[in-house]
Order: sequence, then C-alpha cells, then structure tokens
Amino acid sequence: MQDLEKLREKVEEVLGVEIPIKERFPEREEIPDKEEDLRNFLARHTDITLLRPTATKEEIQELCEEAKRWGFYSVIVNPYYVAFCSELLEGSGVLVGVAVGFPLGQNKPEIKAREARLAFQEGAREADMVMNLAALKNGDWKMVYQDIRGIVEEMSPCVVKVVLEAGYLTEEEKVIGCLIAQAARAHFVKTSTGFGPSGATEADVRLFRRVVGSSLGVKAAGGIKTRTQALALLRAGANRLGTSTVSILTSEEPQNPSQFPY
Amino acid sequence: MQDLEKLREKVEEVLGVEIPIKERFPEREEIPDKEEDLRNFLARHTDITLLRPTATKEEIQELCEEAKRWGFYSVIVNPYYVAFCSELLEGSGVLVGVAVGFPLGQNKPEIKAREARLAFQEGAREADMVMNLAALKNGDWKMVYQDIRGIVEEMSPCVVKVVLEAGYLTEEEKVIGCLIAQAARAHFVKTSTGFGPSGATEADVRLFRRVVGSSLGVKAAGGIKTRTQALALLRAGANRLGTSTVSILTSEEPQNPSQFPY
Repeated sequence: MQDLEKLREKVEEVLGVEIPIKERFPEREEIPDKEEDLRNFLARHTDITLLRPTATKEEIQELCEEAKRWGFYSVIVNPYYVAFCSELLEGSGVLVGVAVGFPLGQNKPEIKAREARLAFQEGAREADMVMNLAALKNGDWKMVYQDIRGIVEEMSPCVVKVVLEAGYLTEEEKVIGCLIAQAARAHFVKTSTGFGPSGATEADVRLFRRVVGSSLGVKAAGGIKTRTQALALLRAGANRLGTSTVSILTSEEPQNPSQFPY
Repeated sequence: MQDLEKLREKVEEVLGVEIPIKERFPEREEIPDKEEDLRNFLARHTDITLLRPTATKEEIQELCEEAKRWGFYSVIVNPYYVAFCSELLEGSGVLVGVAVGFPLGQNKPEIKAREARLAFQEGAREADMVMNLAALKNGDWKMVYQDIRGIVEEMSPCVVKVVLEAGYLTEEEKVIGCLIAQAARAHFVKTSTGFGPSGATEADVRLFRRVVGSSLGVKAAGGIKTRTQALALLRAGANRLGTSTVSILTSEEPQNPSQFPY
C-alpha cells in the first residue's frame, strides 16, 4: 500500500476537492464496567437491522419494540418499511435508518439519491448506502464520489454511512474508499452490508479509523452476534455497530447462525 | 393449497382486475439432438448474467463477448453497466437486460419504476425485477401488483420478468405471486435471484407453468451450472434460463461452486 498521505493527495487531485479534516466526532466514551451501564452503552452505540426480503410487518414491529426497550441508536430497514417504522418509533428517541442501494450498490447515482430523498420524506434520519464497488475497482473515483455526494445532499443534515464491503477490497482500495467517502462529506464509513463475503473485522476497523481519524465515524457491521465481538470492535476504533440480533447486548457465546437475517 | 381457480378468483377480486389469459408464448420448440444445434438452442433460451457488486468493466466486456460468441438471448447486468453493455452489444442481436430492485425487492415502487425507465433509456430491452416479497407476505397484494405494473409500463413493449424468489415462499404464496404477475401483465415469472436461499427447481418450474399456462414465460434461474440441469428445467416447462456460467452449454458435470458470482 502506498503511503496514506500520498493516497490522500492523489484522491484530492483526481476529485479536484480538498478532503475536509475536522474533529466531527468527539473522543469516544469509556466503556463502562457495570452490567446495566454496559448494556445501555452497547445499545446506544448500535443500529439494529432487519433487511431480509421476506420480513413481515409483525417482525418489523417486534424489531422496533426491541429497539425501544433496549434503547438502540436506530433501526435500519429497507425503503419499503421506512414509513411504518417512523410511525412506530415516533417520539421514542430511536432513529429510523434506511438501507440505500442494498446490497449490490450498482444502482445509478440518481436512483440512490432519490431513494434516500423519499426515505427522508418518510422519516428516515440516517442512511446506510453501499458504495459502487465496481466503479471503485474501475478507477472511476469521480463516479464513486458523486454517488455518495448525491445522498449526502438529499439527507442533509442527517448522517450518511458509506458501506465499503471490505471483504471484496484490497487494502489500498479500502483506503481509497474511505478517503472518497471523507471527500464527499459522508459521516461514517462502514465495513460490510451483512450480505457480502465477510463481516466486520478488527483489522478493517483499525484501518478505517487510521484513515479517517476523528473526522468520520466508523461503523462495524456484519456477523456481529456476541458482546465479546461487539466490545472488541469498539476497542478497535468503531463508534457504531450494526447487528441483527439483540444478543450482542448480553451474550458471550456465538449464536445460532440461522438467526442471521439473510 | 386452495384450488387454483379459487385463488385466481380471489386475486381478481382483491385487485379489481381480470387476469388476462392469452396464448402469448407459442408452443415450445423441440429440444434438438445434434450437438451444435443443442448448444445453439440452449444459448438462445438463456440469459447470461453477472451481478457481482465488484464486477469490473473487463469482466463485463468478457461477458458480452461470450454472449455474442455463443448467441445467448441476453446479458443481464446491474443498472450501472446497462449503458456500457448496450454499446458493446449494439447490432449483435443479443439483448441487454437490467436487474431491478435486486436482490431484496423492498425498494419503493416509484424507485423501481424509475430504475427501469433509466435503464430503458440507456438501451435495456428486458427487465428482471424482484417482487416485493414482504408485501406479498403481508397480504398487500395491491402493492405487489402496482409495483410490477409500474415497471411493465416503463419498459413497454419490452419483456418484464418477475422474480418470486421461490425458496422463501409457501406453495400458496408462489401461486398467488404468479397470478399477481399475470394480472400486472408481466411477461415472465422467474424462480430465483441467485442470491436467495435456493435456486431453480423442477418442481417450482412445473408449478409456475401450471399457474400461468402459456400466457407467460417461465424463467428458471439460480444455481444452474450444467447442461443436465438446463435440459431438465426446460423439460419441466421453462422457456428461458438464467445462469452466470457458459458451462451450461456443454458441461454434464457440476462446476466449482465458487464460479457463482456472489
């Protein structure tokens, strides 16, 4: 991998924009020891998600109830369920997040932007969008940038997370992907969709954090089932987690993999 | 499962439309014996596809070259690559198909319709769209119908195939899904996305064919790797196949599963 600073300069040159560096995310909180505080802390740093194509209204309702009960940061759903969740979560303090371009990311930029806008109008206050990985691999960094910008603009001032699906990328592609997301003023880089070849790893979280510093958040997602995993990823530098199971709040043991939604 | 005619009446009643029955698809051709004729026959009845989120331009180009070389019916790609394939395949007789709402199907109907329209403008002449399976399971048949109608209208007069992702559905849901696709004047029902819990089965093809008669085409897709599988699915009633590998033209043996694109 080329030196990080050289890659940063190269990305700035190709995109013709300066990569903004600011301390957007305050220093991370200490992870508490006391059982109840720890559960609350974990929930407050976690988006709980249900993206299975057959998820029924009853299941989505259960998801929202769990989110309220435990105090998860947000519930992330496909566009079809955004309005329904907004209604269920109104006034609860739990945000609704929308999955945009999930999980392949090869939609046209204007379709992704429009998908985000519609979701925003229906109450979504965060968006997790999949980067166009093919465009990244084709070296079309401008297209990757514009794809993200479109969504950041539609969702403004809400948080946009860019999923890099790290399991598909080389180390250099991961760094470039993070830098383009930062250039496009996204708010988070995120490791995986949960549908890809691998889930969140501590190594990827550490790499992402090294690239974006405290300018962006780092969300670890994909295959996180236990508290042990959750804590390790937070310690590696993540400040948000994504999971499809409440078991990360309490369980030390791996769960039945069939709980995974897809 | 309730009697097919009763379900047909129920779907017509709920949707407030008559399900059109016409002999749109002529009698199926005999499967030829001679090696060369058989290869041509198989290619002419097959859409070859590459939907992996990281597929590069070089890989897509190779796909288009294979499609021209063997005479596949179409090449199916994500929206990002439609314009590129249209250019590569111009005048070749191989159509470009677009994957819409892939593979989760839970996008808003207006987003799917717009995705289809953009692809049509860029040269797509077929669309494979994923049914909103959650809406089907929620009993919101009208939504499922309108979702399909929007795409059929945008693509008109081109062929729209509706993917039911049969591995997620009960027998009755499969029948209802086929009937709604027929009511919405789609042109094909299709078994699987290739990303779901199971691929094409002869039983599903037979069931779909029993429901739609010769009013609609039946496309078998998902996990088809060999000529043996291909022929069995055509004999079960499919008149189009979807695959990600040229090996279905020649190979009698299962291929390395890692060839599968996702």
